[in-house]
Amino acid sequence: MKPFKLASWDRKGSYTHIKIDSGAEPLLIGEGYCTIIAGPCAVESEEGYLQIARFLQEAGAHALRGGLFKPRTSPYSFKGLGREGLEIMLEARRITGLPLVTEIMDVRDLELLGDNIDILQVGSRNMQNYSLLEELGKLHKPILLKRGLSATIEEWLLAAEYVLDGGNPHVILCERGIRTFESYLRNTVDIGAVALLKELSHLPVIVDPSHATGKWKMVTPVARAAIAAGADGLMVEVHPDPDRALSDGKQSLTPENFLKMYEQVSRISRLVKNL
Amino acid sequence: MKPFKLASWDRKGSYTHIKIDSGAEPLLIGEGYCTIIAGPCAVESEEGYLQIARFLQEAGAHALRGGLFKPRTSPYSFKGLGREGLEIMLEARRITGLPLVTEIMDVRDLELLGDNIDILQVGSRNMQNYSLLEELGKLHKPILLKRGLSATIEEWLLAAEYVLDGGNPHVILCERGIRTFESYLRNTVDIGAVALLKELSHLPVIVDPSHATGKWKMVTPVARAAIAAGADGLMVEVHPDPDRALSDGKQSLTPENFLKMYEQVSRISRLVKNL
Amino acid sequence: MKPFKLASWDRKGSYTHIKIDSGAEPLLIGEGYCTIIAGPCAVESEEGYLQIARFLQEAGAHALRGGLFKPRTSPYSFKGLGREGLEIMLEARRITGLPLVTEIMDVRDLELLGDNIDILQVGSRNMQNYSLLEELGKLHKPILLKRGLSATIEEWLLAAEYVLDGGNPHVILCERGIRTFESYLRNTVDIGAVALLKELSHLPVIVDPSHATGKWKMVTPVARAAIAAGADGLMVEVHPDPDRALSDGKQSLTPENFLKMYEQVSRISRLVKNL
Amino acid sequence: MKPFKLASWDRKGSYTHIKIDSGAEPLLIGEGYCTIIAGPCAVESEEGYLQIARFLQEAGAHALRGGLFKPRTSPYSFKGLGREGLEIMLEARRITGLPLVTEIMDVRDLELLGDNIDILQVGSRNMQNYSLLEELGKLHKPILLKRGLSATIEEWLLAAEYVLDGGNPHVILCERGIRTFESYLRNTVDIGAVALLKELSHLPVIVDPSHATGKWKMVTPVARAAIAAGADGLMVEVHPDPDRALSDGKQSLTPENFLKMYEQVSRISRLVKNL
Repeated sequence: MKPFKLASWDRKGSYTHIKIDSGAEPLLIGEGYCTIIAGPCAVESEEGYLQIARFLQEAGAHALRGGLFKPRTSPYSFKGLGREGLEIMLEARRITGLPLVTEIMDVRDLELLGDNIDILQVGSRNMQNYSLLEELGKLHKPILLKRGLSATIEEWLLAAEYVLDGGNPHVILCERGIRTFESYLRNTVDIGAVALLKELSHLPVIVDPSHATGKWKMVTPVARAAIAAGADGLMVEVHPDPDRALSDGKQSLTPENFLKMYEQVSRISRLVKNL
Repeated sequence: MKPFKLASWDRKGSYTHIKIDSGAEPLLIGEGYCTIIAGPCAVESEEGYLQIARFLQEAGAHALRGGLFKPRTSPYSFKGLGREGLEIMLEARRITGLPLVTEIMDVRDLELLGDNIDILQVGSRNMQNYSLLEELGKLHKPILLKRGLSATIEEWLLAAEYVLDGGNPHVILCERGIRTFESYLRNTVDIGAVALLKELSHLPVIVDPSHATGKWKMVTPVARAAIAAGADGLMVEVHPDPDRALSDGKQSLTPENFLKMYEQVSRISRLVKNL
Repeated sequence: MKPFKLASWDRKGSYTHIKIDSGAEPLLIGEGYCTIIAGPCAVESEEGYLQIARFLQEAGAHALRGGLFKPRTSPYSFKGLGREGLEIMLEARRITGLPLVTEIMDVRDLELLGDNIDILQVGSRNMQNYSLLEELGKLHKPILLKRGLSATIEEWLLAAEYVLDGGNPHVILCERGIRTFESYLRNTVDIGAVALLKELSHLPVIVDPSHATGKWKMVTPVARAAIAAGADGLMVEVHPDPDRALSDGKQSLTPENFLKMYEQVSRISRLVKNL
Repeated sequence: MKPFKLASWDRKGSYTHIKIDSGAEPLLIGEGYCTIIAGPCAVESEEGYLQIARFLQEAGAHALRGGLFKPRTSPYSFKGLGREGLEIMLEARRITGLPLVTEIMDVRDLELLGDNIDILQVGSRNMQNYSLLEELGKLHKPILLKRGLSATIEEWLLAAEYVLDGGNPHVILCERGIRTFESYLRNTVDIGAVALLKELSHLPVIVDPSHATGKWKMVTPVARAAIAAGADGLMVEVHPDPDRALSDGKQSLTPENFLKMYEQVSRISRLVKNL
């Protein structure tokens, strides 16, 4: 008997699909789909965000990401625009019809973000912030749960279990690289975990190759690998001018490179579905 | 220039000593002292807690630990007595005159715990819960900051920096083992980090050999090593009947073994101070 | 300037292709090819090995693997058939026309294996056995260099550098999973390293999903991911009756599952080449 | 039943003491002793080595270390003086009466080193070089077996088992730091492993704080911790002029600092023995 009950495949016996109705068209996430969530690491300015949002909508992305409250290792780094940025994201949704994804770090932001954002992301550093997870379990809203930097697969599924046990069945697992001794790339994408989770659990599994690798040149090959291993989607960073990004520019795709990645990943996804 | 400024030795040039006045006698923590914080993993019952508290006071412990709100990997595990347990801890302080240490997990508990507890502990899983750290930076109360399971020394000091930068200079660093590939013991005590932190930073550094090793037989030798390496104190789990503990029994010392450890550690501490 | 010179892409400016002429048809390994090396973990019996060899030849495998001298963690485990097994492998080559791959552990086996085997494998535990690497540098024979369990990418390329610097340019890099804290699967396949190596170096890069995951169910999805990330081939374990294998049965594909994997991987390889 | 039989405490029921008779006085290594092996990383010149050897003998060191055949990550680094250096070490033994320790990397050096050196060291990179271990099992000579960079305690004891099973009971275990994500110090000394090995096994356990930390300032506190945790000795690097060392200068103690370390460690050793 596995310690995670509600998250286990065996107990449910069918894959979970998460439906998001807030955008122009309903969005389904889960087995059989290839959902691309894209956007800059942080919302930095209205002009820049709306520009990239329009581009991503035309390019075929399914949801927009953007950081409002950024967890930063140092207290001296840019921490996001907060409420001001939220208005920008809402405007982007009005224009593009795409649902929004942003990170929630604090239970006191539950109302603000819960009322406005379509998918609430729990970041790696908060994967075991149980007070937060318990509150998210009370919502009827998709939770994108990133794997902790050194979380085992079991700990990750048990963190999901907190949300599920609270009554919210809408959890998406996001592999974003684990911490190992290797330092050439920022983290080590655990591609085996992606394949394994599709066996162990019914929850959708996506991969974030941008944070995982920390180098934009690696984003596309790792994105291809993720989809080939069975992932149900990707979350990637795209920035109109990566060199000028306030955070994580080195790992952001340019719009041009996003198009290439999107095309390659779509072709692999079609192939894998027909295997 | 190091990314942590307020936490760095170079900037301050002298060790920080933290004074706690709430107990029967003032307690000083920092270089030159050997502070022993002890108690059961969780407060489980009034009778048991008061019994062990009286024992620890007579045995020479300097502060009492006890979990009220327990972060548990699984939502199905015992999560602590919460407010009810707090009353028990307060009673223990009245009886023994020893200051209290407990973990805070949620910003909404700040008032409850901040008003009553002498040292607020931030657990490993919350080391990068920046919302919590920022709130703790506004208090005038010692914060015992445990190292995250896979936090680098730099990330750990930057987490301390959040509290210091908020205006609270009373931070105690607690090494509690890091996650590695080795699984014979629960975690790997980073003894080099203890020695290094006494060079890099002015903050007091203590070690928790109980959580770090997960096996009571290893607690005493690792405690000796910690003090020999230069640590300013220890936090150890003691339980009147470890086999019946609701959590972490395997790593808890019996009262008898606590006495042995205390004696050995005290002798090493005296020796190291006179080197 | 990178510490590895001969292994670096920048210095050579074109991919290395390794040609093996010993089989019925010349075999090319490197960028643009998808080489499948397959066979049981160890050569166990003549009948079994010839049976699987014939099957693999018909199925389209490009080379046969088989352990003769097995490095085993415990001195009490089956260590391979040695010279006796070599005769079996040679017979398999006569029958199938496929080149042979086996591990060399000891410089004293250089003559025996060097004269008979087509690709000499250096195992993870010997990746930094410099005496062995220096001897292999004197041969004119392909060396399949497995990554050490906790070798960084740089250390791995420097191990290749030992062979290259000795005068042997025929090195194939084989990612086989690294050691991390995660224990659900045996090791963690470093898929980012695969993509990165195709940037950093001109040497062929293959992946061993069998040893890396330790679970046969994970072999196919991880194999797909490897090829999607840009790997130039795979080394997989196939056993006619995995439950009865003397070593590593749990990670071996049945012939039937090998066919499925082969088909899927071939389709992904064709797609990736045309991206 | 543990997988290591001959190495386990339970099977033997008493600690192993290794006696070395080649020096001026017999040297005993094991429980109850505190053996200090010291010397430069590599033998670099006759004058320098004899000078430091004389110093170490007067300072009370029990054995001399010195690298003759150095395993180097890069083929372009200084690899040791080899046979020429051996003559220098033999001269140092004649002068000081201290036994010699050096690393063996190649089975073809067995005769050369086996006939001349008192303790043969197996380095981290060769901990699972089973061909070498099997040959060392046939000798009647102490083997100092360093832990592999990412070897579990069980794998380490199984490597010792290879030597013991071959018929050589004289194995000394040497903890030298494991590879983790932390990079401020070179490796992470596993102090818990030291304490645990004294429970699990009867073999002597020593610690190498020089390679483990990579920083000379950390050598003394970590050495103190090792002895406090129960280690039976230390292997430390000492160099007359660390800034000019051909390898590992940053981690070498000056003669002056060696004296300080020796004094501190001796006092802790006496205290621990009388606990």
